[in-house]
Parts: sequence; C-alpha cells; structure tokens
Amino acid sequence: MARPRPRSGPTMHDVAAEAGVSQATVSLVLNSATGSRFSNDTRKRVQDAVQKLGYRTNAHAKTLRDGISGIIGFLGDAVATAPFAGKIIEGAQERAWEDGLLLLTMNTGGNKALEAASLDSMLSYKVAGVVYAGMYHRRLDVPEALMGVPSVVLNSQDRKLRLHSVAPDEELGGLTATRHLLNAGHTRVAMINIETLESELPAAVGRFRGYTQAMSEAGLDVLPELVRFGRGNEEDGFTHAMDLLTAAQPPTAIFCANDRTAWGAYQAAQELHLSIPRDLSIIGFDNQETLAQHLRPGLTTLELPFVEMGRRAVDLILRGAEPDGQVEFITCPLIERNSVTHPKEKP
Amino acid sequence: MARPRPRSGPTMHDVAAEAGVSQATVSLVLNSATGSRFSNDTRKRVQDAVQKLGYRTNAHAKTLRDGISGIIGFLGDAVATAPFAGKIIEGAQERAWEDGLLLLTMNTGGNKALEAASLDSMLSYKVAGVVYAGMYHRRLDVPEALMGVPSVVLNSQDRKLRLHSVAPDEELGGLTATRHLLNAGHTRVAMINIETLESELPAAVGRFRGYTQAMSEAGLDVLPELVRFGRGNEEDGFTHAMDLLTAAQPPTAIFCANDRTAWGAYQAAQELHLSIPRDLSIIGFDNQETLAQHLRPGLTTLELPFVEMGRRAVDLILRGAEPDGQVEFITCPLIERNSVTHPKEKP
Repeated sequence: MARPRPRSGPTMHDVAAEAGVSQATVSLVLNSATGSRFSNDTRKRVQDAVQKLGYRTNAHAKTLRDGISGIIGFLGDAVATAPFAGKIIEGAQERAWEDGLLLLTMNTGGNKALEAASLDSMLSYKVAGVVYAGMYHRRLDVPEALMGVPSVVLNSQDRKLRLHSVAPDEELGGLTATRHLLNAGHTRVAMINIETLESELPAAVGRFRGYTQAMSEAGLDVLPELVRFGRGNEEDGFTHAMDLLTAAQPPTAIFCANDRTAWGAYQAAQELHLSIPRDLSIIGFDNQETLAQHLRPGLTTLELPFVEMGRRAVDLILRGAEPDGQVEFITCPLIERNSVTHPKEKP
Repeated sequence: MARPRPRSGPTMHDVAAEAGVSQATVSLVLNSATGSRFSNDTRKRVQDAVQKLGYRTNAHAKTLRDGISGIIGFLGDAVATAPFAGKIIEGAQERAWEDGLLLLTMNTGGNKALEAASLDSMLSYKVAGVVYAGMYHRRLDVPEALMGVPSVVLNSQDRKLRLHSVAPDEELGGLTATRHLLNAGHTRVAMINIETLESELPAAVGRFRGYTQAMSEAGLDVLPELVRFGRGNEEDGFTHAMDLLTAAQPPTAIFCANDRTAWGAYQAAQELHLSIPRDLSIIGFDNQETLAQHLRPGLTTLELPFVEMGRRAVDLILRGAEPDGQVEFITCPLIERNSVTHPKEKP
C-alpha cells in the first residue's frame, strides 16, 4: 500500500499575495481564535485566498506530519444515519477543522460489541477526545472507557451525571413556542405532545413543561381537554387535531411538539376546510429541513440547534472537557414563517 | 490518557450454551460467509445469544488485537450530513462488521484540503481500503492517493473510469416507473424531470432515458408538451403540474423524477380538486423516508438502494476491489403504495 508523500503546497506568502494583505495579517487571521481584530472584509479575503489556493495552516500541516494528535473521535449510536441529525457531525467537524483537527466518526447502531471495538480503536489512535452522541435527546449509559479521555455527551445526557453533556433546551423551546401563540392573542391554546410524560423523554417532558409555564405566566389554566399525547408522527397529529378541532370549543392555536405532528394537523385543517393561519394557528418543533419550510403555508417552528451543539461539543474537547457532570442546554431558536397569526375574534 | 485493557468477555462455549447448540455450530454460523448451511432458526438463536452476551467473534477480537488491519475508510464529500444518504453508511458499516471490520468515516464537505488531510490520515492507519462516496449521483474527480489502496467509488462514478464505481441504475428506474404507469393503462404520461439534460446529472439523464424507452416500447411518442424540467423541489413540481393539468389535453399520469417534485404535484392536484389516483396517477423516485410514505395517498415510487450500495462497496473492498473502471449499476426497487391506478376512461 502506497503512503502519500508530503506535498509542497502554497505558502502563507502566496495567500497574502492573493488576498492583498501582509503575511502577518494572514497569520493572525488564521491563528487567532476569532480573528476579530480584523474587519469582516479582510477576514473574508484571507479565507477566500486560503480556499482558492488550497492552503493548509500550520495546524493542518501539523495534523498531517504527526498524524496521531490531531484527531477527535465522534462515536454515534446512529447519529450519522438519522435524517437531519447529520448536521451535528457537520458542526463538530467544522469546529475541529478550524483548529486543524480531523473528526473521525464511527457509528454503532446501538450494538454494544461494535461500540466497544470502535472505542478501543479510537483510543489506540490516541484521539484528543471523544464526542459521544445520541441519535435523539435522552439519558445514556456512557461506556466506562470514556472516563480515561476528554469526553462530552452530545444531544443526550450522561445518566450518571459524570461527563459534561450538551443537549437542546426543550423546556425553553416549549416556553418560547407557547408564548409566541399567546403573544399573538390566543387564549385557547392546545398542545399535541410527541410522547406521554411517563416516557421520561426529555423532549416530551421539557416541551410540555414549557407549555404549562407559559400558560401559567399568562394566567391561563392548562385544560386537560386541550392536551393530547401522540407518538410524534403525521397520523397521530391528524387524529388528535381532528378531535380537538371538532370539539364543542375548539382551540384557535395548536402547539405541535414536532413538525411531523404539525404536518398531520395541517392535513386535519385541510380536511375540515380550515385555513392556516386565518382559522387556526400552528407552531411546530424541530425545523425539520425537508418538511417545515415546504408546508403551505410555511411552518413556524423551533429549530433543534444541531450545528451549534456539534460545534460546542468539539469546543469543549479542545478545552479539555472536564467531567463536571453538568448538562449544558443550548437554545432552540424560533423560526418564524406563516402559520401563526392573531385569532379571528376573541373567544 | 488511559488505554483500555483487553477485557475477558464471554467465550464461544458460553454462546453455545445460551443458544442450545454445539460450539462447532456457533463457529460455523459465525465464520461462514452466509451461514446458509443452517436453518434460519439456528442462525437466529446463535445471533441472539451473541447479541445478548456481547460475544466477539475471532474476527472482531482480531480487530481489537491488531488494531490496524481491520479498518475500512469511508470518505464522503457530505454524505453523512445529507438527509437519507446516511443509509449508505449504515449498509457499509453493517457489511464491514459482519467480517469484524470497523468503518472509519470522515466527511470533507467538499473541502479539498480537508479531503487530503483525511485521506492521508486514513492511509497512515493502513486501512484495508477506502470507499469514496458522493452525496448524490454524479461524476467525481477521484484523489490520486486512492490509486495506491483498494478503493471503490460509491453513489457516483469515477470521471476518469479508473476505479470501480457503484451507482443507482437511474435508467432502469425511469423505465420501471414509466412502464408501471403504462401497464395501468395510461397513454398520456407526462414527466417532470429534476434537472435539464444539459446538466449531465446521471439521475436526470438516466431517468429521462428510461421514460423515453418505455414510451417507445409502448409505441407512444414523447410529446414535448408533456415533458417538463424543474429543479427537483416542491415549488417546481407544483408549478409544472399546474401547467400540465390545466392544458387543453392534460395527462392522466405524471412520472415525477423525485419525491419532492411529486409532493408539489400532489399540492397542484389538491388545488385543482383532482383526486389521486382516481383523477390523476403519480409516481415518484427516491422513496425519501420522511416523505413518500406519509403523503395522502401514499406515494408509489422507486427506491434509491442506499443500504445495498453501501454493502456492495464494502463487499468489493473485502475482495480486493480491482480498479477495473467499471460502473456497476444497482437496481432501484419499485415501492408500490396508492398513487397509481388505471385511467378513468381511455382518451
């Protein structure tokens, strides 16, 4: 098997000439953490020149020379094969590469023997750290071997609260979603959840807590007849929305705890000849990229911050990732489209 | 950094006892390529016992002992971060693990410096081979370094026809889709493509060739007014379907060259109060998992064989992957749901 020879590529001098700046500027832009001492224009010119010439920074060159110290392991139960959650890897990799490190990804599909083999293999490469990622937000049993290397639990929580975890702020998301409907003037606000509360699924429990908190802030009771529990799919969204909307006192707005449930609610509204948002406001959760923006009208929803979470986990590894047992919650931003407006008339 | 110690796990004896079979049977089931000498029941019992006890086969143990020979590299431009295409990784990994090998995945996002660093790193690990995967089916420029190691191009084609490539059979897919509509009795069959033919996108070119071949087989002309070119999104599917369906002689069936286009055509049918499939038959392509099965009615479509392609690429690496320049096309299976029926009346 041939080993590639080191290539002599473009130099920092070449980048400076291409960008029309000094070598010192190139060096500072590429090696400072934020590059914030320079204008956006200068930084962009340097980055464009780096891209165009295929220049590698010292950190990148060091990765190639040493081979063994510039790698962060990313161990996912199935994260790379779950639609959308792949954005977590995108964020993690982007952040690693900014410091000249590579992200080595292995997926286990939940197979414990494969997980052990993957982890052993990563540790034998002397990775700088390991990101241990869950496919969806839940409490995970973390392999013992992670205790010997800087590690972060991502998109999930270490059940034993030993490692630092990075997870979406479900409760704040639920609060934000419900407040958005209340602020538009709705008072009969229903929620269709994605699981029962007994499931202890952080998304189901947290989003519901946010809903109840927002209702309480507004001085409104949480009415049992306005809260439904589906399984997070279109079918259940359809069934529960039909049921809610054909009741004697239907809601004027529904917080659907994920976008697929919201899609089902759209189909129910269509079946009942209700126009969204004129007759019914709907807000979702997830900002699922192949769905939310393509519904008619576009779905207002909360975004799962995959890219930011991935970046943050690698950032923590680069800083040594103390196993402090803390769960760090990342905000889910509100994405406004056209599915929410004020109610037709105050009930 | 702590190195994990080899663990003393369950033995083959333990597996045999758990499964209620002899050690020889366990060995043969686990080490033969297909295990086909035994009944499904016996194989399942052995596999369940392996799973339950967390037993590692010799191949798996060897991977852990040697560390360097049991790894296949998977280099993707963005495949792990593209929705759905992650199934390619699932298939590749599943096949590798059957032989006790790990799949080491790195994504480059199309960044050539990152690609070179990732590949150098993989080669320094002395991987058994490299799968070079494209996010979507196209002709790729393959890095020179791949010539020194068993390599396969996956979900794309080596532009220079040096490596072996594994790609979806777009033309057969287009033929199958169109024949399915013709066999139901349609004669005015439109196609909304996902790109112009000048794009040279294999999916657009191949699926269109399949359409024209099926029409020709049936003795039908390809009418320019029945062929449209969108960009593969809902919006274009909607616009072109509206246009086709409001013409003087509308089609009774539309072959949409991807599922997102088909979703747009569904929305157009709804706008025009046409019922699918009673008034209009629609067939899609891709079998996008968050979309096709959830449309009302469920969308009949062709499936991109991600899992099978991933398995096949690893299979080729395990056999040495001769660089024969061939493109191996994998069949896209027809997935029948409820969007196709016979036309209301013969035109």
